[in-house]
Amino acid sequence: MSLATFKVTAESENPTKTVVRAGNFEMIIDEPKNLNGTDQGPNPVEYVLGALAGCLNVVGHVVAREMGFELNGISFELEGDLDPAKFMGKATENRAGYQEIRAKVKADSNATEEQLRIWLAAVEARCPVSDNLSRSTPVKIVLN
Amino acid sequence: MSLATFKVTAESENPTKTVVRAGNFEMIIDEPKNLNGTDQGPNPVEYVLGALAGCLNVVGHVVAREMGFELNGISFELEGDLDPAKFMGKATENRAGYQEIRAKVKADSNATEEQLRIWLAAVEARCPVSDNLSRSTPVKIVLN
Repeated sequence: MSLATFKVTAESENPTKTVVRAGNFEMIIDEPKNLNGTDQGPNPVEYVLGALAGCLNVVGHVVAREMGFELNGISFELEGDLDPAKFMGKATENRAGYQEIRAKVKADSNATEEQLRIWLAAVEARCPVSDNLSRSTPVKIVLN
Repeated sequence: MSLATFKVTAESENPTKTVVRAGNFEMIIDEPKNLNGTDQGPNPVEYVLGALAGCLNVVGHVVAREMGFELNGISFELEGDLDPAKFMGKATENRAGYQEIRAKVKADSNATEEQLRIWLAAVEARCPVSDNLSRSTPVKIVLN
């Protein structure tokens, strides 16, 4: 199968607000006031959690269809912890990003708990966003 | 410095559309029609690219301030390639997620090219989203 390439463009509107264009859609990213932002959208690391939820939903439905059980919906609670010291330029041994990401997944389904356990393991392994977070991904950032 | 925890909740609205709540904000995630979606928002892997752009903007401005040059704005072009085979359940050796993410960063600035090179290296190292993508992050997904 050939590779699919996904693209977005983005412009800073102020030091914390970014407007991202993805096809016909726009994402507004900002920081809250307590992180010196203008509070016009979720912040970048909240977008990471959102992307993971969206991915688990899509793959969750693909896998449920394969396994042959009904899936009427999924609800998610996601969180992650990070130490702001590194991006703020303070001395720290900690990494810049989330040290851990946790997701709780509730499936509205006629599947047994055992089926749901098998389902969740497959979903996690096949979800592109989960893969990009849990395993190292080459990120090449260059000046334009 | 203590850890900051970020949280979102999300609900599937259909097999491809997810509505994410982050504080007072909402993200609509969907797949395009050619990926069997209802095309009501960017897709999960486009959100990953958007999150990276938003993060590079915030950290870019923090670092420029530290380095003492003017930064009037940043524009970004981001892309990544993935093989859809794995999430679609086809036989493949390829990983599920992006095999590589590329970002082009254009700074509107009075800095020299040498300053911008130093700036970009610091931004990349200190950006939480770049860190979570380029280095392995524990992702714990459980049934609720």
